[in-house]
Amino acid sequence: MQSATENASATIDETELALMDRYWRAANYLSVGQIYLMGNPLLKQPLQFEDVKPRLLGHWGTTPGLNFIYVHLNRVIRARDVDVIYICGPGHGGPGMVANTWLEGTYSEIYPNVSEDAEGMRKLFRQFSFPGGIPSHAAPETPGSIHEGGELGYALVHAYGAAFDNPDLVVACVVGDGEAETGPLAASWHSNKFLNPVHDGAVLPILHLNGYKIANPTILGRMSDEEVRSLFVGYGYEPLFVEGSDPATMHRAMAATMDQAFDRIRSIQAEARASQAAPARPCWPMIILRSPKGWTGPKEVDGKMVENFWRAHQVPIPTVRGNEGHLKLLESWMRSYDPEDLFDETGRLVPELRALAPAGTKRMSASPHANGGVLKRDLRLPDYHDHAIDVTTPGGATAEATRAMGNFLRDVISLNAEQRNFRLMGPDETASNRLDGVFDVTDRVWMERIEPYDVHLSTEGRVMEVLSEHLCQGWLEGYLLTGRHGFFSCYEAFIHIVDSMFNQHAKWLKVTRDLPWRRPIASLNYLLTSHVWRQDHNGFSHQDPGFVDLVANKKADVVRLYFPPDANTLLWVTDHCLKTYNRINVIVAGKQPAPQWLTMDEAETHCEEGVGIWDWAGNEPDDAEPDVVMACAGDVPTLETLAAVDLLRKALPDLKIRVVNVVDLMALQPEDRHPHGLSDRDFESIFTPDKPVIFAYHGYPYLIHRLTYRRANHVNIHVHGFQEEGTTTTPFDMAVLNEIDRFHLAIAVIDRVPGLGAVAAKAKQRFRDKLLEHRRYVREHGEDMPEIADWTWPYGRGAATA
Amino acid sequence: MQSATENASATIDETELALMDRYWRAANYLSVGQIYLMGNPLLKQPLQFEDVKPRLLGHWGTTPGLNFIYVHLNRVIRARDVDVIYICGPGHGGPGMVANTWLEGTYSEIYPNVSEDAEGMRKLFRQFSFPGGIPSHAAPETPGSIHEGGELGYALVHAYGAAFDNPDLVVACVVGDGEAETGPLAASWHSNKFLNPVHDGAVLPILHLNGYKIANPTILGRMSDEEVRSLFVGYGYEPLFVEGSDPATMHRAMAATMDQAFDRIRSIQAEARASQAAPARPCWPMIILRSPKGWTGPKEVDGKMVENFWRAHQVPIPTVRGNEGHLKLLESWMRSYDPEDLFDETGRLVPELRALAPAGTKRMSASPHANGGVLKRDLRLPDYHDHAIDVTTPGGATAEATRAMGNFLRDVISLNAEQRNFRLMGPDETASNRLDGVFDVTDRVWMERIEPYDVHLSTEGRVMEVLSEHLCQGWLEGYLLTGRHGFFSCYEAFIHIVDSMFNQHAKWLKVTRDLPWRRPIASLNYLLTSHVWRQDHNGFSHQDPGFVDLVANKKADVVRLYFPPDANTLLWVTDHCLKTYNRINVIVAGKQPAPQWLTMDEAETHCEEGVGIWDWAGNEPDDAEPDVVMACAGDVPTLETLAAVDLLRKALPDLKIRVVNVVDLMALQPEDRHPHGLSDRDFESIFTPDKPVIFAYHGYPYLIHRLTYRRANHVNIHVHGFQEEGTTTTPFDMAVLNEIDRFHLAIAVIDRVPGLGAVAAKAKQRFRDKLLEHRRYVREHGEDMPEIADWTWPYGRGAATA
Repeated sequence: MQSATENASATIDETELALMDRYWRAANYLSVGQIYLMGNPLLKQPLQFEDVKPRLLGHWGTTPGLNFIYVHLNRVIRARDVDVIYICGPGHGGPGMVANTWLEGTYSEIYPNVSEDAEGMRKLFRQFSFPGGIPSHAAPETPGSIHEGGELGYALVHAYGAAFDNPDLVVACVVGDGEAETGPLAASWHSNKFLNPVHDGAVLPILHLNGYKIANPTILGRMSDEEVRSLFVGYGYEPLFVEGSDPATMHRAMAATMDQAFDRIRSIQAEARASQAAPARPCWPMIILRSPKGWTGPKEVDGKMVENFWRAHQVPIPTVRGNEGHLKLLESWMRSYDPEDLFDETGRLVPELRALAPAGTKRMSASPHANGGVLKRDLRLPDYHDHAIDVTTPGGATAEATRAMGNFLRDVISLNAEQRNFRLMGPDETASNRLDGVFDVTDRVWMERIEPYDVHLSTEGRVMEVLSEHLCQGWLEGYLLTGRHGFFSCYEAFIHIVDSMFNQHAKWLKVTRDLPWRRPIASLNYLLTSHVWRQDHNGFSHQDPGFVDLVANKKADVVRLYFPPDANTLLWVTDHCLKTYNRINVIVAGKQPAPQWLTMDEAETHCEEGVGIWDWAGNEPDDAEPDVVMACAGDVPTLETLAAVDLLRKALPDLKIRVVNVVDLMALQPEDRHPHGLSDRDFESIFTPDKPVIFAYHGYPYLIHRLTYRRANHVNIHVHGFQEEGTTTTPFDMAVLNEIDRFHLAIAVIDRVPGLGAVAAKAKQRFRDKLLEHRRYVREHGEDMPEIADWTWPYGRGAATA
Repeated sequence: MQSATENASATIDETELALMDRYWRAANYLSVGQIYLMGNPLLKQPLQFEDVKPRLLGHWGTTPGLNFIYVHLNRVIRARDVDVIYICGPGHGGPGMVANTWLEGTYSEIYPNVSEDAEGMRKLFRQFSFPGGIPSHAAPETPGSIHEGGELGYALVHAYGAAFDNPDLVVACVVGDGEAETGPLAASWHSNKFLNPVHDGAVLPILHLNGYKIANPTILGRMSDEEVRSLFVGYGYEPLFVEGSDPATMHRAMAATMDQAFDRIRSIQAEARASQAAPARPCWPMIILRSPKGWTGPKEVDGKMVENFWRAHQVPIPTVRGNEGHLKLLESWMRSYDPEDLFDETGRLVPELRALAPAGTKRMSASPHANGGVLKRDLRLPDYHDHAIDVTTPGGATAEATRAMGNFLRDVISLNAEQRNFRLMGPDETASNRLDGVFDVTDRVWMERIEPYDVHLSTEGRVMEVLSEHLCQGWLEGYLLTGRHGFFSCYEAFIHIVDSMFNQHAKWLKVTRDLPWRRPIASLNYLLTSHVWRQDHNGFSHQDPGFVDLVANKKADVVRLYFPPDANTLLWVTDHCLKTYNRINVIVAGKQPAPQWLTMDEAETHCEEGVGIWDWAGNEPDDAEPDVVMACAGDVPTLETLAAVDLLRKALPDLKIRVVNVVDLMALQPEDRHPHGLSDRDFESIFTPDKPVIFAYHGYPYLIHRLTYRRANHVNIHVHGFQEEGTTTTPFDMAVLNEIDRFHLAIAVIDRVPGLGAVAAKAKQRFRDKLLEHRRYVREHGEDMPEIADWTWPYGRGAATA
């Protein structure tokens, strides 16, 4: 199994293992200290009640195993001079990760007040799970982390995201047996089918079976080695087992196994990189570590089994203040690590142990890969004007908006081919979403067998497709967090699958904004297409525009929502989003052939404003207020609004209509709520202080109310949007069912504008009749009436004077 | 491998197989017909353009495989007289499922206008993916389905949910290789660790590897048999392979394999049921079917490979109207099934084929298990008064609300132990969420090894814990859809993991409400606890109250949101939810010791109203309007509101305060929007027409605005809620960071009530000072100031006159 080119594993030095055991004890000591102490960090005096925190919070169970892995990775890094980052899946491994970063000096470099001495150690202990301090899991605050340990499921997919296009990096990823029960993690193992040994790095999964969750055994922990082996061989890995509880034996086994794993990784890479042929999928190694939960902690507390059981999960000795016996037990537990043997008088790690940590940026806590903004290079962006749709007159051109975007992304891929820092993710829908222009210059990446008749499939593709929104999202997060760029295109309804991942990424970004040492990373960009109004054929299960509601709950400086009404606006927004950082940009746009409204010049102006009056579409005179504002956000609502304007102008030529289109939804919020928000004055100059506003909106209408409820004219804003009335029907019928179609909008105007008289009443009756005619026609013919489907904007650019 | 007690597999009758092949052809014919035709269903005339639908929608690729499985299951059902239901995972298998239900007569029984003759066949074809018709996937409209095929990932978890406590049922579950890539599906295979062969039924997974998704090969489809076998052996199954494309060979192989699988199932069950010992986890069989995508369809279209490739995924011949060549190709494809050999002159299936379908409720399409409301028995509910907390005076008792609920659920479990129709799901958090009263009478179910030191773990438990919200949700959905009852308790923040599953279940319920033949099923009940205000210790990653925002987007007749402020109200709400049907009830309640406000009598009245004035808490005189309304929803907001009232009454004794508590959030909506909505008159009688309302709400404040924006007094409603300001701190500090604490609420009252003068200004300054003092104290001591933590309501029941 050993690589001929490396022989680090030939001998394992027992002296070094003994030092490593002491280093491990130091990390364990610091971990217990963080959970329990607020004073007396070195136990220079007998432990007193007041040394102990009043609220005991934190998680011990997983920590000694994490520390064990850490010291063994350190050995390999030094022996082989490799770049490794450590992804800590187990949710509450915070004390261990923080302890190690402090031991190798990074913590004090970043947070100088937590210095490398007794006082620093005291602060390190005190701040853990303490008000004003740090969370109990690996978090943005933790040096070396790109992975928040709170919600479980995403460690391995983040690891793969980090490894793509990072040929010299090894991502060590610890997966707890609790987390291994989650769906996203169970699917993540298959990421090896997308990792190319030539130009990607390696992921070394370390499945840590300590047997228990909060209050239960784990599924994988209770499976036999045979079944576990079979499972991971089936997933395509070579599992290497390390099992036991005797520290000395375990150190020897782990060191040998780590060497074996790194030898395998290097030989796989060397072979693939030396060969001229496209690489085959390798069988990558993984480590399966069975060690006791709460290893080296108290065996029993109050007569109940703790070590190697779920009672070790959180705080093994639950009450210490006020309980002399527990205080003694805690002290003897901490002294069992022999702190005098580990730290000098000043509280500093003794030199022979300090020497075990790698130096500089080889320290996992100081790796620039784990602070991706440091490595981030701006994308080289093509000129989006090159992709502009020629719109000589509003509605005078037809285009598929996402196809134009796909061509733009094709050029993004070409321009950055050498940098290898852009990927496009999607759940098997890149072509379905009309982004297939990208396949002119790249393929879908695929490490399984490729058949001669396969299409745009290769080991080299920059497009990643897998039928799992979780994997798409997680890979992209890992890729961005390590300093690269990307886009995730998804069916609008099914983006809810990753609601919770979105939440966690938004939280990560919010926290990093207060950590100046974390450099900004590229924004996470979503294209939501195949949207609710054009899922008439797939039906109700595919119709849900609610993701943006979730997004709007997040901090204003993190999120943006864009509804470009046509291809040129979509191009501008795409270009813009790719230039931003530390944000989550959501773009909602259709893929179907649709009328185009704005020239590229107009699109630029409109998008920069975020919201604007479309003079050419309304007919208000220069010298008077309009009678009604017809507002719209989203491509189908815009189309229906303009068709309603046409109906109204023909029926009621004296009615003065203003058309407002909203691209950037956050412009509707007050300016003190969102940086893109309009001032009240600007809002009123667009939406009027007191005229009825008939607002056709892409999603659930409540969002518009929620964004505008503080505006003076809010009482007159009437929103038409998705009312959860979905079915299998035609595109226009979807609009009718939810009352955002041209007829309902025109009727709403007649109902809301006072004093329109008998002509209007008659027009309203005609519109109602049209709706009935439509329903009959659609049910008979299975498609929309030609007069609907073929409607075009008849007024050209000079609507106001037409 | 064969069971001695059954010998159905001894011989496979070639004549029968030949008939089955014809039955399969009939199903395939009907499937193609649904995708393409609106007339000429039996091809009695040469096919004309006008026979073909104008929009071709639907999915062929998966369908012939689904039909193949269907006919083979029919054989087994007849041969063995077993109860089987068919869960169709592949998203777009609609045409096949519908075809089979029509062939066995169920479709026409339920929808008599789609009769068993040529005219019925024409309607069957026409309605598919047609306006006013049916969706392209198995849906609520499809007889025999409990599983919507739109969003992928949940087929297998639904199958297990259906099998629990259904000892005589076999749930055949087809998993497509596309769906198999999703996270939830990848985790679902481990459900076998929770299935007890004695009192549960069996799940027969049929992994259908047809190799392709929309535009890509599949991961599992391209894996070798060796790796696939290893994977599923690792998951704990015995995989039985059926592979090929020659129909006759495949029929023989499939029939033999089906027999083998059913033999294994019966022998596992017989052995376990005969034994007195607790059963060990069996190695259940599964079938791995490799067959061509688009099997029996066109091999090539326009020179491009279609059969056995992803081009067969949707409509293999994409344009037929107007393309003579394509029309001919379609006709010859359809005639290749030889319709004259399958259907008589009237369009009815010929008798020798009709005889192949099972009869009556043995037909999978007519199984009562797939229309669970038919089998549903009401729960036997204990008297919740038995669990009431004795509240002699408001705030005079302290209790953990969810603990009281746990004791109530314990009694629910006991009373229904014999019916075996209630389960409690949770991601390893039942005890953490203080529901551990249930462990007095039951255990966690667990089919892996059980150690002597394990706690409340047995093969017989009614509590299901797994670290996967997806599995908890999916099992419960499957359990409810087959006529049983349950509760899902979850950390509030992590329920977002199943946002999309919630969406799909809500859609299912909405559609079934318009299908009178579907009998109502029990509601899906959530308890969201360990909520945002008490995740101070776990930090920001665990803090998210936004699930209810998603829920509020759904149709009013499907969803309910409850925020009981204490234990007695929680008991009433729990009892109420368990009596409802066809709904999704979300209850948000805390688990920490907290003051109790209402006696059980008061709780009943309050919960029945949904919202009410707490006379004892305010101090408004009988004969005048209050100066301010202090409203609250949620346990922590209620506590902080009452503490703010206390502060204000002491500082400003003349200020007239009304306290309003909201239990049922939907009461805030207008009555035309939600059945629980208050009339405007009632709303004003509670919230006043014009006084300031300071509303402390549990979640994101926007939801309250969205629910109340149509109310006349909306402009005066000022909501304090979660502002996305989370961190690791103390409970009270969480409230302070988000400004829903007593001091901020009291300050808000002073700011909003006009004319309070200098005394109020001074009080405001004192409250500000208190906030600073709090922050200093918390950062020094790591816990809340005693005066905050120990505050109790000082006025008793006679606040108004105190």
